[in-house]
Amino acid sequence: MSHKLLVLTRDNQAYYDALAKHDLPQLTVLDDSPNSVFEANIWLAEPKLAAPLLAHASKLVWMQSTFAGVDALMNHRRHTGYQLTNIKNLFGPMMSEYVFGHVLALYRHHTKYSQLQRNSHWQALPLNQLRGKRLVLLGTGDIGQHLCNTAHQFGVEVVGVNRTGRAQAPFDVTLSIEQLDTVLPSADLVVCVLPSTDETVNLFNKHRLQLLKPGAIFVNVGRGDLVDEQALILHLSLNPTSHAILDVFKQEPLPEDNPLWKCQNAILTPHVAAPSTTEDVVQQFVDNYHRFISEQPLSNRVSFALGY
Amino acid sequence: MSHKLLVLTRDNQAYYDALAKHDLPQLTVLDDSPNSVFEANIWLAEPKLAAPLLAHASKLVWMQSTFAGVDALMNHRRHTGYQLTNIKNLFGPMMSEYVFGHVLALYRHHTKYSQLQRNSHWQALPLNQLRGKRLVLLGTGDIGQHLCNTAHQFGVEVVGVNRTGRAQAPFDVTLSIEQLDTVLPSADLVVCVLPSTDETVNLFNKHRLQLLKPGAIFVNVGRGDLVDEQALILHLSLNPTSHAILDVFKQEPLPEDNPLWKCQNAILTPHVAAPSTTEDVVQQFVDNYHRFISEQPLSNRVSFALGY
Repeated sequence: MSHKLLVLTRDNQAYYDALAKHDLPQLTVLDDSPNSVFEANIWLAEPKLAAPLLAHASKLVWMQSTFAGVDALMNHRRHTGYQLTNIKNLFGPMMSEYVFGHVLALYRHHTKYSQLQRNSHWQALPLNQLRGKRLVLLGTGDIGQHLCNTAHQFGVEVVGVNRTGRAQAPFDVTLSIEQLDTVLPSADLVVCVLPSTDETVNLFNKHRLQLLKPGAIFVNVGRGDLVDEQALILHLSLNPTSHAILDVFKQEPLPEDNPLWKCQNAILTPHVAAPSTTEDVVQQFVDNYHRFISEQPLSNRVSFALGY
Repeated sequence: MSHKLLVLTRDNQAYYDALAKHDLPQLTVLDDSPNSVFEANIWLAEPKLAAPLLAHASKLVWMQSTFAGVDALMNHRRHTGYQLTNIKNLFGPMMSEYVFGHVLALYRHHTKYSQLQRNSHWQALPLNQLRGKRLVLLGTGDIGQHLCNTAHQFGVEVVGVNRTGRAQAPFDVTLSIEQLDTVLPSADLVVCVLPSTDETVNLFNKHRLQLLKPGAIFVNVGRGDLVDEQALILHLSLNPTSHAILDVFKQEPLPEDNPLWKCQNAILTPHVAAPSTTEDVVQQFVDNYHRFISEQPLSNRVSFALGY
């Protein structure tokens, strides 16, 4: 049995180079000609690039997404009939660096100390410790678990929120998304690493943002569509001591005239919290390919019913 | 038996208020009149304020330092004849917040992303992960151990350095200070939490700073006199990709005309990495006071021979 692989990414050459370093028996890597879409039974693809071609994927049996987020492939006419796997366990450490780096920068007054340094001015500001604070963390998968462990190392209590509310280590408490409103008013920090599903779109609307206490920090590193951006802009202007740290947006790149750019109490980054490196993604593909050819269950399968 | 306490801090009233909240049997808290120096058998004191008065401390049997660093009390004519205790286990979490907050800010380009945001410009910068880096951490006591655990959570390898080189959990490797030069060239990060002793003054001189690889980050949150500041200024100007993060200085407040203020690749803060709160210090004093009156060994005793 021989297999044919289609690579569909924004930098196919990097993937071809990385694949060439591995032993992949019975696998032919196809070129990017249109014909390859019809011929390939395996796709290694970015979800947004793969979605418009799915209708022509007559031989597709397995798609390895190069991302964690696969929402572009949901709600598609052809959303079954093939196995979909995504990338897991790569992003936790990078997300911890991003989230805690930015949160600590706010807590420990980096910007103000930098201004004081420019003026050669020795002045201590009030200590604002992360220790003892409460984090409400939406998403209890591998990324959420890594963030939770990092929070614990800093002495932060962590309430996990997931779809069903089932208990999940290492969270101190786990609630269902229906219970979110009961816990939001007590949060010092809210961090979203949820996938995008029908239930999570605009989860942070005007009503939920109003539940946050003044001074709370809201972090979105999940999906841009979890947040009603107009409501967030209003919330931030009404609560000058509150902050938002945003790496994802409804429209990316964020348009130059979007007023979020100019929010004084928002920190914006261009979807860089946890990029996957080609080598890491290819390694997960290779591991799964060996499972595929030996007919073992694939790792990191996505449920089309749940959307993640 | 009744005991008499002298409080010697920059904010005695805060200490009186905090002490009043505790049950301290057989203890009289003296006022700050000069006579109290002669009368008190217990001092709760900042080392620098206590040192000049030690010659008159005729009844002193126990001094609880309000700081971790007690070097001001070493090399004093009267450096024995009383028990000295210091503050421990408070500073690790605060030091972790300070060190990893600032290190992550550099690794993850906070300043550059902030500039891009001001220009409403969507542009990803190269990912520079903390994960997989090597930290050489000077000081393996309770602060160093907390920093080491935090580094491990971020996937950083940690080489601990202490006086004797004795192994210490949770460090990956422990070396003696005599072996420091062999490991410095391999460090991505160097963090100093050493106390000030005769052996550590100017430890980071021109020779040792030259051993650091270009781009390495040097962090001093221990004592200002560990670093030859002139040599550090030269090192930073010769290595524009290297950075220093400095919370402590030879002279504090750092004089306005000190050229360190203007180093482009130095981040300076005014000795704020790990301040002790009055309540936390008083709690450690109270715990020790109960040991004192029941004739149990005091916690956190300082060795006059070792200087810490």
